[in-house]
Amino acid sequence: MNLLLALLLACVASTLALSLNTASRRFTSGRSSLNMMASKPKKVFVLGGDGFCGWPTSLYLADQGHEVIIIDNLSRRKIDIELGCDSLTPIASMDERVRVWNSVSQNKIRFKFLDLQLNYAELLNFIKDEKPDTVVHFAEQRAAPYSMKDDRRKRYTIDNNVSGTHNLLCAIVESGQDIHVVHLGTMGVYGYGTSGGEIPEGYLDVILPGGRPTKILHPAYPGSVYHLTKCLDALVFQFYNKNDGLRVTDLHQGIVWGTNTPQTIKDERLINRFDYDGDYGTVLNRFLMQAALNIPLTVYGTGGQTRAFIHITDTARCIDIAINNPPKSGEKVEIFNQVAETLRVGELAKLISSKTGCPTRFLENPRKEDAENELEVSNKKFCNLGLNPITLDVGLLDEVVNIAGKYSNRCDKTKVLPSSFWNKARADAAAKDEARIEDRK
Amino acid sequence: MNLLLALLLACVASTLALSLNTASRRFTSGRSSLNMMASKPKKVFVLGGDGFCGWPTSLYLADQGHEVIIIDNLSRRKIDIELGCDSLTPIASMDERVRVWNSVSQNKIRFKFLDLQLNYAELLNFIKDEKPDTVVHFAEQRAAPYSMKDDRRKRYTIDNNVSGTHNLLCAIVESGQDIHVVHLGTMGVYGYGTSGGEIPEGYLDVILPGGRPTKILHPAYPGSVYHLTKCLDALVFQFYNKNDGLRVTDLHQGIVWGTNTPQTIKDERLINRFDYDGDYGTVLNRFLMQAALNIPLTVYGTGGQTRAFIHITDTARCIDIAINNPPKSGEKVEIFNQVAETLRVGELAKLISSKTGCPTRFLENPRKEDAENELEVSNKKFCNLGLNPITLDVGLLDEVVNIAGKYSNRCDKTKVLPSSFWNKARADAAAKDEARIEDRK
Repeated sequence: MNLLLALLLACVASTLALSLNTASRRFTSGRSSLNMMASKPKKVFVLGGDGFCGWPTSLYLADQGHEVIIIDNLSRRKIDIELGCDSLTPIASMDERVRVWNSVSQNKIRFKFLDLQLNYAELLNFIKDEKPDTVVHFAEQRAAPYSMKDDRRKRYTIDNNVSGTHNLLCAIVESGQDIHVVHLGTMGVYGYGTSGGEIPEGYLDVILPGGRPTKILHPAYPGSVYHLTKCLDALVFQFYNKNDGLRVTDLHQGIVWGTNTPQTIKDERLINRFDYDGDYGTVLNRFLMQAALNIPLTVYGTGGQTRAFIHITDTARCIDIAINNPPKSGEKVEIFNQVAETLRVGELAKLISSKTGCPTRFLENPRKEDAENELEVSNKKFCNLGLNPITLDVGLLDEVVNIAGKYSNRCDKTKVLPSSFWNKARADAAAKDEARIEDRK
Repeated sequence: MNLLLALLLACVASTLALSLNTASRRFTSGRSSLNMMASKPKKVFVLGGDGFCGWPTSLYLADQGHEVIIIDNLSRRKIDIELGCDSLTPIASMDERVRVWNSVSQNKIRFKFLDLQLNYAELLNFIKDEKPDTVVHFAEQRAAPYSMKDDRRKRYTIDNNVSGTHNLLCAIVESGQDIHVVHLGTMGVYGYGTSGGEIPEGYLDVILPGGRPTKILHPAYPGSVYHLTKCLDALVFQFYNKNDGLRVTDLHQGIVWGTNTPQTIKDERLINRFDYDGDYGTVLNRFLMQAALNIPLTVYGTGGQTRAFIHITDTARCIDIAINNPPKSGEKVEIFNQVAETLRVGELAKLISSKTGCPTRFLENPRKEDAENELEVSNKKFCNLGLNPITLDVGLLDEVVNIAGKYSNRCDKTKVLPSSFWNKARADAAAKDEARIEDRK
């Protein structure tokens, strides 16, 4: 029956793709005809290379000819154990992933187990020994709900993310090497409605008292402890760039969707993780999981929140573009918005619902955030460097539908509802929420 | 001979005071005739209450009738051991300090040994048990040079300060209590010349693209890892204020000078610490120490750096004003500039030099900073609340001169020159600096 449902949903996906044309807002019109710069392969550390974004990016970079060394403490897998969750897709152990990739590809990768927060001396020695050209830094706790779950997780997120990022910069300066850092940030650092229009790429043109125009780092207005850490990172980057001339590219990414990439589908043991639980599942993947299981799509609040999206394949492409286009010596921190399009959460649910017959259920929002917002985002820089992003209407929805359908027997339905609340008022509202009580039955 | 020198310098001080009138820029003209608000005494935790600012503030608050509990991990004393330095003044142990104060005052204080970064559970329990009205937060590594000394100290400063501040806010939210946090920040978060005129108090009025006026948290442009941590703190405050309604006052303080206050002079065993070493000695105290010993006043770079100053007695007064005027529930983070006046470093040295005959020596600047800057600072808020700040020309210079002279036999001259450099270029410049080589002889 799961297979039938998957086929049905795959069919629905192409219909859906057309409908999405009207609802989603894409940012590709500014794209120039420039091709990506041809660039010689580099030696790249991928910190956090076992994660949802890190793993497919590592394989993509290897496929592009870069020499890739993954560094990870496997914390994402350990948090799954802590939460009693698991990836919907059956991911292989890190050792097996590396072994399989190295058997299907000429471009071998390596893996080193290391904790960025706790193993500073080992990190420094590894940098000195291996002399990477570039360090891609994904190695942070990345779920907003998990970061708001309780005091233990708030503290872990701050300590892990801030110390980890700072240790990395400190070690690079100490090594005396000229290493380019590419960091995964988030669109969430900007806040919503604070830019005076389209959200620019990292820097904001303002007029100071006295009429003097200037360019400032975009004011930070984070919506969770997780987002807060990315804002703290941005100031750490600014300082090390100013004081030590460190070359940094900070990527403000939208919500990532999708599972597989041309690299991870080469062998089932290379499959990427797919999170659907209330803490780590991102909104589109959660909806598709729910549709596959025919359980109500859970929209938080009014669904009027507009968010930015990007496909996992484009995450990997953008990282490669960033690696090949480092800022020059002496230039300030380079910031790109890594997004393909924006869409309201409620519109997304409505479309999926109308095509699958799966009902939508509105829950009290576990987050403290604006109920509704507009969102315009500039992504000109990546487009000018040749990115042609995958959008929700270009046939890739079916990949996710197939994943959700194919592995739906691995789903633990009790893990889908939100279990982290931004503050006591939000937790209290959820406790009285009839839709939620209904769902629990 | 030391005593004679002290008398001579004390005499010089009053002459000097008049001369300073012309060079220093004071910010008291906006003061209204309001008195400080009468307010009922509160139960106050002073985190970092063993330090240079924390100790005299604790005694002042006790003298005002507040119930004071000092919390400290005594890290400042331990860092002295690590650096082979000591306070010029012979400070008593914490136990003795508390015992002596409680014998001379009706307003008893208590002391609890606790590490804010490492003892979260104990902190939370202590908050739950004691239910303070206010927490004054001085408990951060506070020397810019120490924070730039090497990778170990950079990492300690980030980890200690950011985790400590975050743990405090996290524990307050977890306790469910409505506690007002008063935090000691620094003028150094603003950077210099980025405000378009007078530096406002925390928030900057700017015009966004499209012509929309708005008020933003003043852009951060820190000059050391220490200053960076205060900028990170500011974002943590903003988030917890927005998400949890935490009431926070952040004080952006100038460079503190002076040693004793009306409370610390009640008994010699209550004496405040006086730092003169290259890492922890602030510029005016260092000059006076050098003048007392007749060793050249060390000016870094051109001496054209304009900095803001405040006397230690006013630090304590400002904290009391902040405690008595908390932001209301729902208000954003309150920010005060805690400064009395501004002065160029070179002008200060020249005046002291011309009166004492002590030569001035220009050293390569160990810091990476602008050689010269103008500085205008608003401090209207404190003045409107009744602060009448002590300035360098109001006879208090002699107190410092007397301290420097009286205890000059305790000085280790080898500790005065800078021993921390902002980056390799600054360290290399110092190594070739003839003035420095001369001084080392």
